[in-house]
Amino acid sequence: MKVLAIESAALVASAALADDGAVLAEMTLNTKLTHSQTLLPMIGELFEKTGLRGEELDAIAVSAGPGSFTGLRIGAATAKGLGVAWNKPLVAVPTLDAMAFGLWGSRFLLSPIMDARRSQVYNGLYRFDEAGKLEMLAGPRALGMDELLEELKTFAEPAVFLGDGVPVFRKQIEETLGGNALFVPASHSRSRAAAAASLGLEMLRRGETVPAAAFAPFYLRISQAERERAKRLAKEQEGTV
Amino acid sequence: MKVLAIESAALVASAALADDGAVLAEMTLNTKLTHSQTLLPMIGELFEKTGLRGEELDAIAVSAGPGSFTGLRIGAATAKGLGVAWNKPLVAVPTLDAMAFGLWGSRFLLSPIMDARRSQVYNGLYRFDEAGKLEMLAGPRALGMDELLEELKTFAEPAVFLGDGVPVFRKQIEETLGGNALFVPASHSRSRAAAAASLGLEMLRRGETVPAAAFAPFYLRISQAERERAKRLAKEQEGTV
Repeated sequence: MKVLAIESAALVASAALADDGAVLAEMTLNTKLTHSQTLLPMIGELFEKTGLRGEELDAIAVSAGPGSFTGLRIGAATAKGLGVAWNKPLVAVPTLDAMAFGLWGSRFLLSPIMDARRSQVYNGLYRFDEAGKLEMLAGPRALGMDELLEELKTFAEPAVFLGDGVPVFRKQIEETLGGNALFVPASHSRSRAAAAASLGLEMLRRGETVPAAAFAPFYLRISQAERERAKRLAKEQEGTV
Repeated sequence: MKVLAIESAALVASAALADDGAVLAEMTLNTKLTHSQTLLPMIGELFEKTGLRGEELDAIAVSAGPGSFTGLRIGAATAKGLGVAWNKPLVAVPTLDAMAFGLWGSRFLLSPIMDARRSQVYNGLYRFDEAGKLEMLAGPRALGMDELLEELKTFAEPAVFLGDGVPVFRKQIEETLGGNALFVPASHSRSRAAAAASLGLEMLRRGETVPAAAFAPFYLRISQAERERAKRLAKEQEGTV
């Protein structure tokens, strides 16, 4: 089976074409360029370089959240557009699962952290079993970094941190967990679409697809605009009491 | 520190720009296109998309072998050319080490296998310790697949196979090792330049560099042309006796 995978939940824009055995082509950009500038040209290039046609895909795997609202929306719009045009189903890959999957077969407790602003992170806790199967122990959730570190103190083993939350919280992590905190090398520190492709292929084999037109990303928290609107409404209501 | 990494030891052509914390850009093609067509344009695109200049690099990490003679020579020529032009040292990353490093922190015994033709593979055996450090248990070497499987039978634990030897030898591996053989998912089954970048950064920190003009890849076996020449010379000598 063949999938196109799209990862744009955070700063990284990444796309991959993969079949069951291997990645056919992958491109990843971790720059300041917006996903609306980078994502579609990248996807076009992958098809051009591999000679694959959209019609030959079995599905489009998309990193479905949590993450940046804008990033998720651009990924979703791109996947939905291509899915509708080519009449292909989507596979909604949980973003934190895909991050953990990038460390396939790890011996460590995995703690991907995405910077969610206001001292919070999007996080899940994961482990790989002895057959190489990914198990989720906690999450997906938005929680304070303090709270996550308190929770991790209850584990006797070291936890491995990855994701764009690392540069933001590294000092706090090291001060709290000391030698029980490990950090992945550069090659494994951010999302890549190939991980979403591998997980997407697993989900596709289990029949876990969504019609392209029906797909919506998984935001986990309400957006800043919605938060401010709720606050304003509450204030207005106070005023009228 | 910043590196450009080049991986062209087998069918996959891959290039990455990375600093200590993260991959800045990466592109990987696993197609029938020759590396002489793909590698330099890919590298050009990574610089263009990131806005980075060659002068800003600290070194060029190149997957140094073993592998395909042509692939290694194209990677070496490219790395040497850029290194001389920009006056940057090279870091010679052992190809099998980089393949194992793609499974950073694995709980399994790792057995990358590159198809070396004539029923042989290029192989090393690796393990990650509890601090996430890569340890080489055997290799690098060219050996018969039969021989490797006999050796792996002496390990009680399962071994994980990856690399372009997998599609060639998978049936034989499964028949010999049964449940003690595991295979990585698509996302982890081939080389990627980011792994060479991470290992290259580690080597660079230890000062393990080579002047660009002096670098030569590590072939492990003599080439087919040399093998045939030796055979022909031996025959000619026989004829004269």
